[in-house]
Amino acid sequence: MYQWILVNVGSHFDPARSIFVAPRKGVYSFSYHVVKVYNRQTIQVSLVLNGWPVISAFAGDQDVTREAATNAGLVMMERGDKAYLKLERGNLMGGWKYSTFSGFLVFPL
Amino acid sequence: MYQWILVNVGSHFDPARSIFVAPRKGVYSFSYHVVKVYNRQTIQVSLVLNGWPVISAFAGDQDVTREAATNAGLVMMERGDKAYLKLERGNLMGGWKYSTFSGFLVFPL
Amino acid sequence: MYQWILVNVGSHFDPARSIFVAPRKGVYSFSYHVVKVYNRQTIQVSLVLNGWPVISAFAGDQDVTREAATNAGLVMMERGDKAYLKLERGNLMGGWKYSTFSGFLVFPL
Repeated sequence: MYQWILVNVGSHFDPARSIFVAPRKGVYSFSYHVVKVYNRQTIQVSLVLNGWPVISAFAGDQDVTREAATNAGLVMMERGDKAYLKLERGNLMGGWKYSTFSGFLVFPL
Repeated sequence: MYQWILVNVGSHFDPARSIFVAPRKGVYSFSYHVVKVYNRQTIQVSLVLNGWPVISAFAGDQDVTREAATNAGLVMMERGDKAYLKLERGNLMGGWKYSTFSGFLVFPL
Repeated sequence: MYQWILVNVGSHFDPARSIFVAPRKGVYSFSYHVVKVYNRQTIQVSLVLNGWPVISAFAGDQDVTREAATNAGLVMMERGDKAYLKLERGNLMGGWKYSTFSGFLVFPL
């Protein structure tokens, strides 16, 4: 999904499925910026934790070449919990180019 | 103000007043995304530290359904210092729906 | 370039050249929001690591007063590696007002 993995220390991010699996219980910080190219639609992108959307972001401008749906937040995760991005509405013509998704452990619990 | 508190470890965020109070001296990271719904106005949202705005974000598009004023930064805080978001300009019809505000201690000093 | 340095613990950010130099090997988190004022152009801003752009952000709206090109990500750095922002396309009339750039060590390696 993403073009490059910049950092994957501990290999807790699964590149094939684009899912982050928490290696231990703690508070994690996530940030994402999903770029849509020019088209007549609105996208909504959510950070999903174990199947439940916890935060959402929107991009709906009609007249710009590239625009990002962006958000960030802290979530509490148990060991084995899964976090990933879901495109709730719209579609990404041209794929996830320029989009980023990053997360790290802020502190263990 | 916010609909859900996802994480509040240590209870240093006061949900009733939407104010974060630093539990100890250190460098803190804050991130916010404030979503405005469709209307003909510009909003300006600042991160306020002890009454002083330190960083600002804008959303002023006229034609989109939802758009976020977003920013992030590091600030140094003494124990008891207060951080919160302030809507400097415009108003949020429909409230702070989809808006997020998060912060954590990067390292103590 | 930036109007104020909010935090510069360890003085690893060089204000004169606006370059962050990694004090040790590790994973670093960077976040930036570059604000353009009203004008008829698109800007592209990249986070550059040792001369190579690693992530990019865009702002291209024609009709708003202020709009931010924003992104964030994690990068692995060796001691002495340099990170900075580069305006790849467009220009910032009025300078980097309201723009922010922040980074910190997530964990050493």
